[in-house]
Amino acid sequence: MTLAFSLLANTHAARRGRLVTAHGTVETPAFMPVGTAATVKAMLPASVAATGAQIVLGNTYHLMLRPGAERIERLGGLHRFMNWPGPILTDSGGFQVMSLSKLRQIDAGGVDFQSHIDGSRQRLTPAISIEIQRQLGADITMSFDECTPFPATHAQAATSMRLSMRWAERGRQAFTARPGHGLFGIVQGSVYEDLRLESARTLTEIGFDGYAIGGLAVGEGQEAMFRTLDVTVPALPADRPRYLMGVGRPADIVGAVQRGIDMFDCVMPTRAGRTAQAFTWRGELNLRNARHRDDPRPLMEGCACPACTSHSRAYLHHLIKSDEILGAMLLTWHNLQFYQDVMRGLRTAIEAGTLADWAAWFHEEHAKGDIAALPDADGPAT
Amino acid sequence: MTLAFSLLANTHAARRGRLVTAHGTVETPAFMPVGTAATVKAMLPASVAATGAQIVLGNTYHLMLRPGAERIERLGGLHRFMNWPGPILTDSGGFQVMSLSKLRQIDAGGVDFQSHIDGSRQRLTPAISIEIQRQLGADITMSFDECTPFPATHAQAATSMRLSMRWAERGRQAFTARPGHGLFGIVQGSVYEDLRLESARTLTEIGFDGYAIGGLAVGEGQEAMFRTLDVTVPALPADRPRYLMGVGRPADIVGAVQRGIDMFDCVMPTRAGRTAQAFTWRGELNLRNARHRDDPRPLMEGCACPACTSHSRAYLHHLIKSDEILGAMLLTWHNLQFYQDVMRGLRTAIEAGTLADWAAWFHEEHAKGDIAALPDADGPAT
Repeated sequence: MTLAFSLLANTHAARRGRLVTAHGTVETPAFMPVGTAATVKAMLPASVAATGAQIVLGNTYHLMLRPGAERIERLGGLHRFMNWPGPILTDSGGFQVMSLSKLRQIDAGGVDFQSHIDGSRQRLTPAISIEIQRQLGADITMSFDECTPFPATHAQAATSMRLSMRWAERGRQAFTARPGHGLFGIVQGSVYEDLRLESARTLTEIGFDGYAIGGLAVGEGQEAMFRTLDVTVPALPADRPRYLMGVGRPADIVGAVQRGIDMFDCVMPTRAGRTAQAFTWRGELNLRNARHRDDPRPLMEGCACPACTSHSRAYLHHLIKSDEILGAMLLTWHNLQFYQDVMRGLRTAIEAGTLADWAAWFHEEHAKGDIAALPDADGPAT
Repeated sequence: MTLAFSLLANTHAARRGRLVTAHGTVETPAFMPVGTAATVKAMLPASVAATGAQIVLGNTYHLMLRPGAERIERLGGLHRFMNWPGPILTDSGGFQVMSLSKLRQIDAGGVDFQSHIDGSRQRLTPAISIEIQRQLGADITMSFDECTPFPATHAQAATSMRLSMRWAERGRQAFTARPGHGLFGIVQGSVYEDLRLESARTLTEIGFDGYAIGGLAVGEGQEAMFRTLDVTVPALPADRPRYLMGVGRPADIVGAVQRGIDMFDCVMPTRAGRTAQAFTWRGELNLRNARHRDDPRPLMEGCACPACTSHSRAYLHHLIKSDEILGAMLLTWHNLQFYQDVMRGLRTAIEAGTLADWAAWFHEEHAKGDIAALPDADGPAT
């Protein structure tokens, strides 16, 4: 295997692991901040690292269109281009070509599409996607797949999944093994158990360095997602990392880790940070809400991010009302810090064999909700 | 005097000084980054300090409207609100009420206006402006003045200046002296030498902790600005700091320091940083320009800011083309770092008695312009 992965501990299905790539080590379960266009939005790379993130995600679709994969390769690869010296996973472009591009035409070999930026005609195939990810210098390359729309009938999901499986095999052939670099296959099959099992079996037969589960968190709901994981995860090789793509809220991540997932990515913490939403142990806050305007308390006690250590909720509210960039910067940093704190909590609990207790505490805190009133409106301090 | 100011060295008219406020010391000549709405746009306070800035500016007009001066006072003052522990100068609102508000009505006592944010009716007078700046907790409070439009006839400029002088006297009476806090008067009079001299004389008779020169950099051009300084500065008390408001480009600052100015503020470095403009020793660059897209070189060799130490021009260009917040963050930081480096250069040269040489070097470098071509297009390295 070109990516070393070792399992350090487990609690029931949940695993505490370590993935070693050409650009460094990733302690799992891990959350990967999304750096779509060669930047984790509103964050300096050093600030991303300061939150504890060890690996970030880049997007083949965005980067092939702007600034271009060949340009990034000439400039020394994506690590140098964005000044992120740690591991990078790139997605294959399969998801974005369906969600962002115009005038798509799928054939057995790949997808023709028009750039959403300049209308230029482009083509992605399994081999082209692998080659672009090589030019970017990805530590972890993702197979090119068709993202099955949701909802899909069983027949639609089967056809789509089987196309993705043929593409996965072509990608595997196109991928050149190098130490510290690996290729992940992506399980598809919508919410249909037999299709998920067929997809997992097919990918395992081909053989990948890791296995992703795609096509979830697309509207099926947490229950259906967890049910799909319950079926799919046991069908994947135990000695390889498992990556749940595009998930999710903290509670989704906790449940997925309990079901044996090792890696996650999601735009939620960064996107929420640009729309006044903050994640906390007590649930989500909207800092735009007027109830924060006189609140001298930090966003979240005990958080190490600069939004919490250096500023009040009143100030964050003011920045958001004033459309100040610093508001997006601080809330993005906070959310990424919080996601990493959740992952740290999960890793520690798995090591200690206390994951069930930790998860119960997590859900209990979350259910309490934020204390809406100001301290001096809480009644006399007794 | 409530603000200690000592002169450490001088070269002809230029002065190297030290201003001691309640929140710390300012080495002069100093450039003050503008923090209009309680934030230096796109910068964490710690990053502002990292550039070497020792004092920042806040805006009475913006802050009285949002979030409100009383709210900021309840929350512990502007220093705590924005988490800037160093000195803060607040402007009086005189300039912004004329440039930003709606339905203004000036009378002998002050200005009635409508908020540009919510249309609410507001009034500013010399005493109200002083009181708001006290609520904010300013180390340096500015007199409330009428900003004379440019161009103005001699008669218009005289009427406007004399109104500002009456307001300056009322402000002086309303200001309560406290250790480490001071009130600055503002010289007006447009480009008319006799009016500038009359204004300087009037303010000196009233007596202020520092003297600002207002109403410049409004379209009169560098030559007229320098001519006005040549007339005005010698008429100001030598033992008090002199502040040229709203200036300017680095070359303006160098010329003004040579004419005896100690303090500057300008939105240029921060605003330019949000519009792809970068200041360098070799002049200004537009990073949006396609000539940067393959350029692996740093924006400016030798600069300590993260844009220059960690990224290429190609990457900065990509961020700007992609409308990424990180582009604004990095260029703002660079520009503020460059302005502070200019001030450091000026201070060192005054101390060493080499200001004329330094200024000649500065203008020579500036005149060279940026090297547009890539290194490998420069011909063989010999």
